[in-house]
Amino acid sequence: MASVEHVGEFQLIAQLAKKFSQNKSVILGSGDDAAVVAMPDGDVVVSTDIAVENVHFKKAWSSATEIGQRIAAQNLSDIVAMGAYPTALTVGIVIPKSTEVSFLEGLVVGIEEECKKVGASVVGGDMSIGTELAIAITVLGQRRGNPTVSRNGAKVGDEVFVAGNLGLSIAGLTCLQAGHVTPKEFVSAFRIPSPPYEIGPLAAIAGATSMIDVSDGLVADLGHIAKQSGVVINLDSAALAPSAEMVNVAGAFGQDAQIWVLTGGEDHALVATFAKGANVPEGMRKIGEVTESGAGQVLVGGAVFTHKSGHDHFA
Amino acid sequence: MASVEHVGEFQLIAQLAKKFSQNKSVILGSGDDAAVVAMPDGDVVVSTDIAVENVHFKKAWSSATEIGQRIAAQNLSDIVAMGAYPTALTVGIVIPKSTEVSFLEGLVVGIEEECKKVGASVVGGDMSIGTELAIAITVLGQRRGNPTVSRNGAKVGDEVFVAGNLGLSIAGLTCLQAGHVTPKEFVSAFRIPSPPYEIGPLAAIAGATSMIDVSDGLVADLGHIAKQSGVVINLDSAALAPSAEMVNVAGAFGQDAQIWVLTGGEDHALVATFAKGANVPEGMRKIGEVTESGAGQVLVGGAVFTHKSGHDHFA
Repeated sequence: MASVEHVGEFQLIAQLAKKFSQNKSVILGSGDDAAVVAMPDGDVVVSTDIAVENVHFKKAWSSATEIGQRIAAQNLSDIVAMGAYPTALTVGIVIPKSTEVSFLEGLVVGIEEECKKVGASVVGGDMSIGTELAIAITVLGQRRGNPTVSRNGAKVGDEVFVAGNLGLSIAGLTCLQAGHVTPKEFVSAFRIPSPPYEIGPLAAIAGATSMIDVSDGLVADLGHIAKQSGVVINLDSAALAPSAEMVNVAGAFGQDAQIWVLTGGEDHALVATFAKGANVPEGMRKIGEVTESGAGQVLVGGAVFTHKSGHDHFA
Repeated sequence: MASVEHVGEFQLIAQLAKKFSQNKSVILGSGDDAAVVAMPDGDVVVSTDIAVENVHFKKAWSSATEIGQRIAAQNLSDIVAMGAYPTALTVGIVIPKSTEVSFLEGLVVGIEEECKKVGASVVGGDMSIGTELAIAITVLGQRRGNPTVSRNGAKVGDEVFVAGNLGLSIAGLTCLQAGHVTPKEFVSAFRIPSPPYEIGPLAAIAGATSMIDVSDGLVADLGHIAKQSGVVINLDSAALAPSAEMVNVAGAFGQDAQIWVLTGGEDHALVATFAKGANVPEGMRKIGEVTESGAGQVLVGGAVFTHKSGHDHFA
């Protein structure tokens, strides 16, 4: 069992870099001052996310591979939410000296595994010793001719659609926090989220007027769209009813499953607005409407949503 | 004096993001799932570097602004070392809850200050609470028609040229470690390095066959070129003689100034190889030659260099 302090920095980076396959967009990969990646549209879509041990993940709850997949998924989802295709990643890791090399290898396998789902490649990164494990991933994406879909284009009369899971990750997290590793459906959803990667670009092609991935909670993230678009969004509570199993599990913890659906983050569902009559991609379901101009309110069943609408790691 | 735990995550990010000016390549800046940046060459040059408190910087040695400038300089230098122009940055920060907002503002001012030197803009990023301050920067660059210059193109008969400082940063660090804030020349060089930004693209245009920025030490970094190019490089010790002042300062600490020149990192000098007779950019000075094919040796004055050739944070 070798820890990273027994392996030199350059050797460790070279050893881990070999595990990443390279797609045909990679003109120059890891091993130089910088990588070079094809961006045939004449622009690049770029996003950065950080994950810190015991803030965003815990080794007790997830294997190294699961942590890698989860962090990669969160990052890839941001590119998809613009209507673009994730192409290349850089990975910056702060690692305690005592970290097992096998843990890093697992992390790398997980990142690679998730990247394979969308055809993206890790093209570079950096490692540093530190006291706390932290992972910063930057993802570059290509539009391939799609328009980018930002948060400020929702119009009064638009309909709100979602693809992907809502509330499963928070349900799984609640189980893990209580020491349970079941129900598997929820715990697995926490460990490895399943963002609907293919839907993002399809929604852009179908003319989505705004789009965001649900990382902080449905109401919180739709709040960004509502605020930046200057509109009021009304969610249909019937369309957001939790499953019977989620109701059971929430009940066992004295919690409200509907709140999980409305405020649970990290499932990385995609939520988008479309003009009425748009050819919305298969796999998206209608959950609400843009009702009027406004200051960014998100209503649920016509009523102001008073519950804390999402997660703020700083609070 | 507000610490970050008293300011919400979204508000803090919005507040800091406002401080970054946006160049004309920024199609969509901070505030969405991802940013969009023009890359008119049809490709992007990308590099990521991490800096961790008490590993790469100390608040006792540098102001927040100096730390920001230093970290940005280190990153921008990687793009320049490919012969490209830094265009856009994302900044990921892990911050302890007790961090003063004013410290983050200083950091942001420093990053912006350094970016202005090359016309680059911060277009996005992420923040997370953690126990240890860490900063991960990703820089995207444009070629603007220049060839990229990698590490594997040095040819037997090429001449080795350098631009920028060698050994000044380690001299300054040594002073600071001993509790001195003078000589100013060295301490300032540690606090805010001065990479010769304009030289990188000029060297690419002039046909540099390989190039690297000196972040780990001249011999160590030239070792990457020698190894990846399969050559032996012989450095001219006379051309790498330390200044009289550096000899004095090193002497006062019982150290060897020539070793500082050969192994001191973090000045981010640019070292490149050119075919004999190339029109080498003004500001570069000749320091050696590529003498023969080989396994990556870097000789000094024809002799094997036995001193530890550079810095490994993991050792």
